[in-house]
Amino acid sequence: MKMDIVLIPGDGIGPDIVREAVKVLDAVMDKSGHTVKYTTCLAGGCAIDETGVPLPPSTLEAAQKSDAVLLGAVGGPKWDTVPGDMRPEKALLGLRGGLGLFCNLRPAILYPQLSAACPLKEEVVAGGLDIMVVRELTGGIYFGERGLSADGQSAYDTMAYSTAEVERIARKAFEIARGRSGRLTSVDKANILETSRLWRKTVECCATAYPDVQLTHLYVDNAAMQLVRAPRQFDVIVTENMFGDILSDEASMITGSIGMLPSASLREDSFGMYEPIHGSAPDIAGKDLANPLATILSAAMMLRHTFKLEEEAKMVETAVSRVLEAGWRTGDIFSEGCSKVGTRQMGTLVAEAV
Amino acid sequence: MKMDIVLIPGDGIGPDIVREAVKVLDAVMDKSGHTVKYTTCLAGGCAIDETGVPLPPSTLEAAQKSDAVLLGAVGGPKWDTVPGDMRPEKALLGLRGGLGLFCNLRPAILYPQLSAACPLKEEVVAGGLDIMVVRELTGGIYFGERGLSADGQSAYDTMAYSTAEVERIARKAFEIARGRSGRLTSVDKANILETSRLWRKTVECCATAYPDVQLTHLYVDNAAMQLVRAPRQFDVIVTENMFGDILSDEASMITGSIGMLPSASLREDSFGMYEPIHGSAPDIAGKDLANPLATILSAAMMLRHTFKLEEEAKMVETAVSRVLEAGWRTGDIFSEGCSKVGTRQMGTLVAEAV
Ligand SMILES: CC(C)[C@H](C(=O)O)[C@@H](O)C(=O)O
Ligand SMILES: CC(C)[C@H](C(=O)O)[C@@H](O)C(=O)O
Repeated sequence: MKMDIVLIPGDGIGPDIVREAVKVLDAVMDKSGHTVKYTTCLAGGCAIDETGVPLPPSTLEAAQKSDAVLLGAVGGPKWDTVPGDMRPEKALLGLRGGLGLFCNLRPAILYPQLSAACPLKEEVVAGGLDIMVVRELTGGIYFGERGLSADGQSAYDTMAYSTAEVERIARKAFEIARGRSGRLTSVDKANILETSRLWRKTVECCATAYPDVQLTHLYVDNAAMQLVRAPRQFDVIVTENMFGDILSDEASMITGSIGMLPSASLREDSFGMYEPIHGSAPDIAGKDLANPLATILSAAMMLRHTFKLEEEAKMVETAVSRVLEAGWRTGDIFSEGCSKVGTRQMGTLVAEAV
Repeated sequence: MKMDIVLIPGDGIGPDIVREAVKVLDAVMDKSGHTVKYTTCLAGGCAIDETGVPLPPSTLEAAQKSDAVLLGAVGGPKWDTVPGDMRPEKALLGLRGGLGLFCNLRPAILYPQLSAACPLKEEVVAGGLDIMVVRELTGGIYFGERGLSADGQSAYDTMAYSTAEVERIARKAFEIARGRSGRLTSVDKANILETSRLWRKTVECCATAYPDVQLTHLYVDNAAMQLVRAPRQFDVIVTENMFGDILSDEASMITGSIGMLPSASLREDSFGMYEPIHGSAPDIAGKDLANPLATILSAAMMLRHTFKLEEEAKMVETAVSRVLEAGWRTGDIFSEGCSKVGTRQMGTLVAEAV
């Protein structure tokens, strides 16, 4: 197979971690005989600096023509004062919207090797954590109309959803739940929001096609509590864009393994954009300090979801586990008794383990 | 002083717990020489059953004429299928909006006597937790325009804020921070939402009048993470209505003391509505099993904020601490080695300790 991958290193530690993921992908190619063509593109703060806009049209075009995108991270305090429409984050929204990536998968997994970093008591997470948050990514209040009044004294944002938008993400979530434990929790605020009532009704409708999946509904405030109180009750969570933003970050933090967590943004075909869930950490950029594992695991998700190379995906995931098992750690996940390594050496270790 | 208090027991365990709070208030009156007149009103599911609407106009009128409202809890599965506009929750929104209660105070405190119930590791909460969430309560997406398209295929909700709305809640939060550690965290999603940018700008403006308060801004997704990772970094958190709903519930759950937590909903004058943050727990209603302490502590907040009886408020809070210290527990907070009591006995114990 010949793979056509667009790399968007982005800002801060983005270039450091994407470089290591490429190292690991190359090792997989060597072993599997597949070939890959990389095209590196600008997006985020660095694109603002070089081209004046966060998402140059050429980047979106290149992404559209490719099989998959691997993204590092965008943003940083340097661009925090630019006006709303010109922020680095706009690049993410532009890519998500422009590429039609409505389905965001965010696995929240507790790595047993890192359980010391988990902020929850042992008895709360005993048996491990493995939650899949399925976040709607191209609708809701992120993409609705918004505005500021002429006098600057009032502002509004609109949360909007159509049945079709809810249906397609719900179906993805039901499929995923079916392939796991068969339990799906849909999160909304149906006691207040009209969009949530539409959401709940539509999810209920879809449920009839998945009698083998056990569906429950939770209000978002309750979900935020339950994630802390008893996270093991969750298997797959499906929710709208902003609730998904909040809950997936909370879910990843309760694992304590946040430097390790990848994500995939998908649509109906095999195309996808893959990125770590952590930020651009500008303070440690270029210092060989960043943890590349979340990006490496994002590349594994790419092999699985876009290229259907399940075996190769597992190869990368196993390599990461073995490197952790052997005690290698970057600074962010370091604990007593382990061996500290830099970004590059971590990448090399995983590539070798592949 | 003669106090005019409206009681809204509501649904589920509401009547059980309000009754005990009254018992404690009466004990305070006995000791302090103040007098109180109670008026009991309907709201929530029981009001739907008796009058056809969740918030009868007579209830709102009585509340408007009173000095303060003490509310138990509203809602339950029995009314989950009624249409959006007729839900028990509408009573809460009607009271908040109708009484102009824009400022919701939700203390999240870890009771040392209950630290076993805290889901976070000891080292994460060492030294205790005492966070005050200040939630805007009469604006945002809870009160914005919403609707369903004629064909039922799409829905929208509007999040709207004016500078004036942000200013008044920000000022309250700055005042509260000034009276505590002097640290205030404002939570928004200014990288996406126009209302959040207005929010941030307005809070920044207010900050100039409070040079002694140290203001920081956090995105809501990051705040949801930080509450789990390092909750002790927070003292006072101020945020808009829906973010406040989610984060205050998360904050209360990380304390593990959720059966204990009161809340106050205030406006510029001394009027206030006071209620426990927990729900109506219909499964244990009327069984002498509910924990009345959150409602009793809500009554203490009433003494403090509405009647400016700081000493009497402390009297109640100290009584609760002493009863816990002595090992008395309702079922929800029971642990090995303590003595289990019912709702009524718990109320009596606190009243006696007063
Ligand atoms: C950077 C920001 C716009 C983005 C979001 O809110 O979606 C991020 O928090 C994420 O979750 O990917
Ligand atoms: C019952 C519900 C409408 C309410 C809210 O969301 O405000 C509750 O969750 C709360 O926080 O008081």
